Amino acid sequence: MPRIKDEALHQTRQQQILGAAKSCFVRHGFHATSMRQILEAAGISSGGAYNYFASKDDIVLGLVAQERINIDYLVDRLQKEESPTAAVAQLVHDAIAFTDADEASIAAEIYAESLKNSAVQVVARANSNHLIDALYATVSKGIKNGTISKRYSPADLAEWLLALIEGYIGRVATNPKLKHKHAALMAKKTVLQLLGDK
Amino acid sequence: MPRIKDEALHQTRQQQILGAAKSCFVRHGFHATSMRQILEAAGISSGGAYNYFASKDDIVLGLVAQERINIDYLVDRLQKEESPTAAVAQLVHDAIAFTDADEASIAAEIYAESLKNSAVQVVARANSNHLIDALYATVSKGIKNGTISKRYSPADLAEWLLALIEGYIGRVATNPKLKHKHAALMAKKTVLQLLGDK
Repeated sequence: MPRIKDEALHQTRQQQILGAAKSCFVRHGFHATSMRQILEAAGISSGGAYNYFASKDDIVLGLVAQERINIDYLVDRLQKEESPTAAVAQLVHDAIAFTDADEASIAAEIYAESLKNSAVQVVARANSNHLIDALYATVSKGIKNGTISKRYSPADLAEWLLALIEGYIGRVATNPKLKHKHAALMAKKTVLQLLGDK
Repeated sequence: MPRIKDEALHQTRQQQILGAAKSCFVRHGFHATSMRQILEAAGISSGGAYNYFASKDDIVLGLVAQERINIDYLVDRLQKEESPTAAVAQLVHDAIAFTDADEASIAAEIYAESLKNSAVQVVARANSNHLIDALYATVSKGIKNGTISKRYSPADLAEWLLALIEGYIGRVATNPKLKHKHAALMAKKTVLQLLGDK
């Protein structure tokens, strides 16, 4: 078992490698980036590197796991907010606003990887499902207490909300003219309108 | 210059290869599919094949060009419909309803390719821009004649509509439980609500 100090160092190194990988992926794309480039960017000798990540695929899995931390944070805020409508609108806003052009381009690369790597797909799908489940629960609460319109089912609304989030992140990744903060505000306004009209 | 008969045969062969490529990509994914598999599936001898497409990349470009035909069809219908609100809602519906799980998975592969292949990116972006421009014009018309709500700008609405379409197609590609026809109806309802409320 590693000593606590070593464990902390191990985690710091992992974060360093993930951060370096992200900036390499943004600059060169996932496929044109080699493990060696990532380790150089992270300032880690290639000898020791494989203690942290065995391959680029492992790094992608690490990035999806990191993404889970962001989702957990968003879900945590969702559950703390008292008004279901405000909670959902804020989550949609933040999910898009936290994803600047670089993050959107990484999300796009992860999405692309998930299409051909089933390990990535399983973890990425678990992330989406976690978000869908939380949205479903909050929307249901709002419909029950009469603050969210009954015209759509909670399941349809939860899928719709995720489609809007993911659609905007995809647009930010591919359309340089679309700014993520602007997209986040527009998405939030439309969510408030859609949930609020009774 | 080829005789007309040869030209027709050439186009038929191209369509055959694109169709075969699609079914290979759906079954094995883009990267695990070889040119040889595609030609076998199309029933074309590998000797003659390179008259049609020089590489898998060329096939992807062919698929994006095919996609343009669908977009042109949608835009044509959009422009023929008199009511801007109905036109936009129908386009969003059809863009999603025409994209079953297999088509969604191909759209996802093309999206992934566009991230690392600038030739694909250019053509894919031209397709998106064509759709955005048509949506922008129709939404502007509706705002001017008072049938579409003034609360959002035409540019914001056009981007929002495309984000919703692409988001839903992405969800259909990754969530086997979400049926494209159901997604299309839900998207249409929300568009009608959003554009109609004044």
